[in-house]
Amino acid sequence: MRGAILYAPGDVRCEERADPMIMEPADAIVRAVATCVCGSDLWRYRGIDQVTQATAIGHEYCGIVEQVGDAVTSIQPGQFVVGGFYASDNTCPHCRNGMHFFCNQRTGFAGCQSELIRIPLADGTLLATPEQPAKDLIPSLLALSDVMATGWHAAVSAGVKPGMTVAVVGDGAVGLCGVLAASQLGAARVIAMSRHQPRQQLAKEFGATDIVSERGEEGIARVKELTDGVGADAVLECVGTGESVVQAAQSARPGGMVGWVGAPHGVELRMQDLFWRNVGIFGGAAPVRSYLPDLMDRVWNRKIEPGKVFDMVLPLEQVAEAYAAMDQRRAIKVLLQP
Amino acid sequence: MRGAILYAPGDVRCEERADPMIMEPADAIVRAVATCVCGSDLWRYRGIDQVTQATAIGHEYCGIVEQVGDAVTSIQPGQFVVGGFYASDNTCPHCRNGMHFFCNQRTGFAGCQSELIRIPLADGTLLATPEQPAKDLIPSLLALSDVMATGWHAAVSAGVKPGMTVAVVGDGAVGLCGVLAASQLGAARVIAMSRHQPRQQLAKEFGATDIVSERGEEGIARVKELTDGVGADAVLECVGTGESVVQAAQSARPGGMVGWVGAPHGVELRMQDLFWRNVGIFGGAAPVRSYLPDLMDRVWNRKIEPGKVFDMVLPLEQVAEAYAAMDQRRAIKVLLQP
Repeated sequence: MRGAILYAPGDVRCEERADPMIMEPADAIVRAVATCVCGSDLWRYRGIDQVTQATAIGHEYCGIVEQVGDAVTSIQPGQFVVGGFYASDNTCPHCRNGMHFFCNQRTGFAGCQSELIRIPLADGTLLATPEQPAKDLIPSLLALSDVMATGWHAAVSAGVKPGMTVAVVGDGAVGLCGVLAASQLGAARVIAMSRHQPRQQLAKEFGATDIVSERGEEGIARVKELTDGVGADAVLECVGTGESVVQAAQSARPGGMVGWVGAPHGVELRMQDLFWRNVGIFGGAAPVRSYLPDLMDRVWNRKIEPGKVFDMVLPLEQVAEAYAAMDQRRAIKVLLQP
Repeated sequence: MRGAILYAPGDVRCEERADPMIMEPADAIVRAVATCVCGSDLWRYRGIDQVTQATAIGHEYCGIVEQVGDAVTSIQPGQFVVGGFYASDNTCPHCRNGMHFFCNQRTGFAGCQSELIRIPLADGTLLATPEQPAKDLIPSLLALSDVMATGWHAAVSAGVKPGMTVAVVGDGAVGLCGVLAASQLGAARVIAMSRHQPRQQLAKEFGATDIVSERGEEGIARVKELTDGVGADAVLECVGTGESVVQAAQSARPGGMVGWVGAPHGVELRMQDLFWRNVGIFGGAAPVRSYLPDLMDRVWNRKIEPGKVFDMVLPLEQVAEAYAAMDQRRAIKVLLQP
């Protein structure tokens, strides 16, 4: 089969790789219908996270089950499935508590930017659609495997409730999904912090009521101004840099909560932003499988269309161009067709 | 009148001071019936926080209203009152949101270890008891002006709900009140982390179901052991040092929340304790006036007796001994009688 391999920063190629096989009785093999590039893939592509050897890359996927191991009971060949970006059993105390990333059996996997993918713990990781999906639902179903679930996790972690004013820091695909999540969870006002016109437009389609194009101190001041000097009830931090975390914390009102999902790079939490403002911070890697039933239902019934974050579609062969386009911010997020 | 003055680290004296007077129409003058020494007073007494000049000290009090300014409407001379350790108007957007420490009109005051106290914004700061309290209720009413409200804030900030397992880091008066708060809020299990036998005993009286006497790594391991390897649903951090915050965060299960109220001294928040464990942290200075109606009701109806934290009673004249006893951990908390 064909799949993406990251050789070094800036060097990703689609090449021939061995077909994956069932290795454990709980495994499934999925033939990808669509896969994509994640903002977090760019940390290595840009050399910010180290690349020490050639690595099969990618962790977002949806597709048709090709084969299952003997222990798999709830997933069958032929079903269309979406799954999380790590494997979980969905039965341990952490999974039952909605914290699948801390599953006692958690297993990572990678190399999902490819034709075939081996998914461990298939019963606890994958969820099948009610029937074969219409073609136009594919991008939105793909979005559930990470980006939409991650935006949702930011909103849930920030405690978004009906009527709240919510600010979203970051206008990448996760931030935009955060806007959609806040809106779905009943926020009366969603302030999207974005400097890029096409992203502002999509934020509005996803439910943003206000756009703040300023950053840093000016952005914080603008959020205060929009909230009569008070600050936002909840803030979604969808970037993961030191600056974005400060911006998020300072945009929250006293008693407000920051939901953070941007993998932290160079973040230092300061007492003057948190304790001395009585602002909380809560979040981490999204428990995708926990949110999947609800989110799949919303996509299936066309209440949400998170697939709109894909503003570029390329064949898997052009994976190099997909990374370059996202790196250069020519695309919000690129969908790859194997 | 007589009142405490901190001259330098280790040097606190009860001396003659000028009687306070009404200075603003919203002021009240309260004749203290009881006052006390706070763990946070010790930061200066120990020289950890700087003492640059002789300072009237103390911020916890209850007593009889002696006089009110012309603008005061809800508080009358002769009433027995308790109030927060800073003044708030109880009407601004932050107060209405239960965040009195961020009141738009917030004013600090000090020198409450004295016979008479000037309280600014009396209507928004003080709460009167239904009638004159029985003498044995005085210590518990005094505790509401800071220590019990602060323990309560830790539990509320940690999101304590019925049925939860809650761990409490710190066996000072605030930690002990945190145990009481968690128990009142319905925790099924309250793990008090304490090495001192008399404090362990009081923790049990306040509702602790388990005592962990180990600290640091061993303490964390013991909490894990007591919770089948999972960790606590919520953790109350009632100390404010770097070590105690790490101990709190690592004692929480993934998805758990740390409620923190110990004024941070040398605290560094680490990603491996928070984001990468999906543990949140939330809290700050207690919004005393927000909790007062509920807590006063619980004291008045003898549902709680937070006054038990006072294990030493001294006349105000002996304030030097009160500080020394707390500094040397000979007393949990000292009540002073003016």
